Amino acid sequence: MAEPSGGGLRDEISRLLEELARHGGGPAEAGVTRLLYDSAWSGGQRYLAEEMRAAGLEAHFDNVGNLYGKLPGRDPALPAVLTGSHVDTVRHGGKYDGAYGIAAGIAALAELKRKFGTPLRPLEVASFCEEEGSRFPLAYWGSGNATGRYEWRSGGEYADSAGTTLSEAMTAAGFGLPDRDDCRRSDLAAFVELHIEQGMVLEYFDKRIGIVDTIVGQRRYAVSLEGAANHAGTTPMTLRQDAMTGAAEIAVKLESLASQWGEPLVATVGRLEARPNTPNVIAGSVDFTIDIRHADEWKLSAFSELILSEVERIATRRRLRFAVKPWLTTKPVPLSAALAARTEAICRSLSLPCKRMVSGAGHDAQLFPPLCPTTMIFVPSRAGISHSPQEYTSPEQLADGAAVLFNLLYELAYKEQSP
Amino acid sequence: MAEPSGGGLRDEISRLLEELARHGGGPAEAGVTRLLYDSAWSGGQRYLAEEMRAAGLEAHFDNVGNLYGKLPGRDPALPAVLTGSHVDTVRHGGKYDGAYGIAAGIAALAELKRKFGTPLRPLEVASFCEEEGSRFPLAYWGSGNATGRYEWRSGGEYADSAGTTLSEAMTAAGFGLPDRDDCRRSDLAAFVELHIEQGMVLEYFDKRIGIVDTIVGQRRYAVSLEGAANHAGTTPMTLRQDAMTGAAEIAVKLESLASQWGEPLVATVGRLEARPNTPNVIAGSVDFTIDIRHADEWKLSAFSELILSEVERIATRRRLRFAVKPWLTTKPVPLSAALAARTEAICRSLSLPCKRMVSGAGHDAQLFPPLCPTTMIFVPSRAGISHSPQEYTSPEQLADGAAVLFNLLYELAYKEQSP
Repeated sequence: MAEPSGGGLRDEISRLLEELARHGGGPAEAGVTRLLYDSAWSGGQRYLAEEMRAAGLEAHFDNVGNLYGKLPGRDPALPAVLTGSHVDTVRHGGKYDGAYGIAAGIAALAELKRKFGTPLRPLEVASFCEEEGSRFPLAYWGSGNATGRYEWRSGGEYADSAGTTLSEAMTAAGFGLPDRDDCRRSDLAAFVELHIEQGMVLEYFDKRIGIVDTIVGQRRYAVSLEGAANHAGTTPMTLRQDAMTGAAEIAVKLESLASQWGEPLVATVGRLEARPNTPNVIAGSVDFTIDIRHADEWKLSAFSELILSEVERIATRRRLRFAVKPWLTTKPVPLSAALAARTEAICRSLSLPCKRMVSGAGHDAQLFPPLCPTTMIFVPSRAGISHSPQEYTSPEQLADGAAVLFNLLYELAYKEQSP
Repeated sequence: MAEPSGGGLRDEISRLLEELARHGGGPAEAGVTRLLYDSAWSGGQRYLAEEMRAAGLEAHFDNVGNLYGKLPGRDPALPAVLTGSHVDTVRHGGKYDGAYGIAAGIAALAELKRKFGTPLRPLEVASFCEEEGSRFPLAYWGSGNATGRYEWRSGGEYADSAGTTLSEAMTAAGFGLPDRDDCRRSDLAAFVELHIEQGMVLEYFDKRIGIVDTIVGQRRYAVSLEGAANHAGTTPMTLRQDAMTGAAEIAVKLESLASQWGEPLVATVGRLEARPNTPNVIAGSVDFTIDIRHADEWKLSAFSELILSEVERIATRRRLRFAVKPWLTTKPVPLSAALAARTEAICRSLSLPCKRMVSGAGHDAQLFPPLCPTTMIFVPSRAGISHSPQEYTSPEQLADGAAVLFNLLYELAYKEQSP
């Protein structure tokens, strides 16, 4: 194995994460907020560009503000091996989500250069400008432009809550310059994303590394039930059209069916709004959301159909009017089986207990399979918490993931064999 | 039977209700808002005092603003027969809740005087100042002062949302004058309250009059469940502590047990607040209310205990922390069986189909049984709707109830027999 120098990656990653967190960080309990093209975001990207240069990488921004740090290869005609993640955060998020994959990438490339010199293929680390969808009503603006899902000229279609369009914000941050090419990469040999798990599976199974086989597909629905708001004291149970207990029955049924179908299916009612929402009035209407995820498109689709038929059955029996609006549909994205197998072999040689798993969350990595073999590496999230100031992964756990990344990038960029 | 003159009561009640509704009424869709001691309330009470005088009654206010219209009896030493209801409304309420009992009382007393002259006993109609609890955090301030549950000097303990105390508002409206006696009535022979049903039972059973045997007792609880807010995509079903489905299971169980126990038990989850209430996050905590009502104290208590044990069982199985806070407890109030039987006989002679029932809502009448025999008469509410601008009872239905009231008051106040 190509072992990184002892302690080097761990300390460097911790330093980068702490310094990056100052851009958008306030008091500890407020966490970190770096929204696409805001001043914290600009400061963070500028800081990372400096760190890339200090690490001996060639830093440059594309026209939407994706930042790349490049270690040129001996053969400039070969496609590049790319790692990285996103620099933006949710509002009041943590220090690790996204940032970790960038910091570990910079540290790994610096160490690879120091130990092994110039790679065979170009090796790059990306700090994608946006993934979370926290400012504008779209996600994956960064990796989406890099992979051709989005085109930077379309930013005028989206506005933030203050009415500023994505194009305006992009221009104000110094990007979106006219007469530039699009940001699409067509020169990639592989993409590797290192990320915190944002779940509790690794912690529960006491594994140090997760290797993602598939990023789940999602179906999200907005369900509205309408009954009759009546007096909670004077309306007999038999004469009620109670939207609250209708929604409750659907939520319980959803949970029970999801548990029966088994992993990796998950299904959630996360949001519920009742009206008039008053203790002594039967709820006349309830709006709630259903979020369903599965790694298998056929099962995702079949389960979603089953749930929609349960909504109809329960609402009809209860004399409730109902409406179901699908508002998000994504297909499962299988990642590279070959890269997962190589990552698993690396974990074995490093004696890091690992687990093949699905990612229940969306990630930049899901945009890359049409372009190149893609893999994702997870490290544990304490108590599964993310998108919160309480998000935490220990320096040792961060170093575990970075060591796997270091080895995988070495194999992909320094060895003769094609990825 | 003592029949009121044809059409007289009906037209008079409709006129009084329409004119009273101008005090606190805006556009039709906003309904009527008359809150204790506000300017609409003051205007409404002054208007009613004029109408009482015009009807040949002696009008006077007590020291909290309860308005009485009196027809003195031949024997002033005899205790009085009292009818009436409350003049205040909920915010954006209807024209009938409370107001109907006052308007019908004024119309009935005027007609009784016109047809039969001076009664044997004093006969009075009350416009109680407050019942709904819509401005200050207490209800029954009017009938409570008339019956000794409250004492007008204690108004400094309650403040409205603007920080004005009940005492300050009372003084500003010209009441709560120092050195006055309390408002308690100790001279009552009977209390009769005529009110809209605020439920759909009469309509469902196609009855024109409801006669209340018992006003239900109530138990209200605030329940808090606390689990773990985690990512809806990355947290397997087996590792969740989902406060939303915990609350949903309790709501469904409550409804199912209440249906099994049967009438007149009702149980409701009317209010539910989830946090963070986001589609892709498992709810970390949910607060909800439970409202349980029954006419039998033992069964009310037993059912409440059963539900609390279900909350504990369900929360414990789901690894949710839970807290249950009782915040309202009232006992069932049986009304006079003798007066109910007399009212039923009157309905029979008037050929008005009637139904003995419980009142699932609280009313001023529930304060009076310690003082005197008390009864309540209901007329149908269209679709059971109340506390809404859509509240409606037809002029004919209003006249049905008033005819029953007219006859009952005649029997109680004009005949030799003691109530």
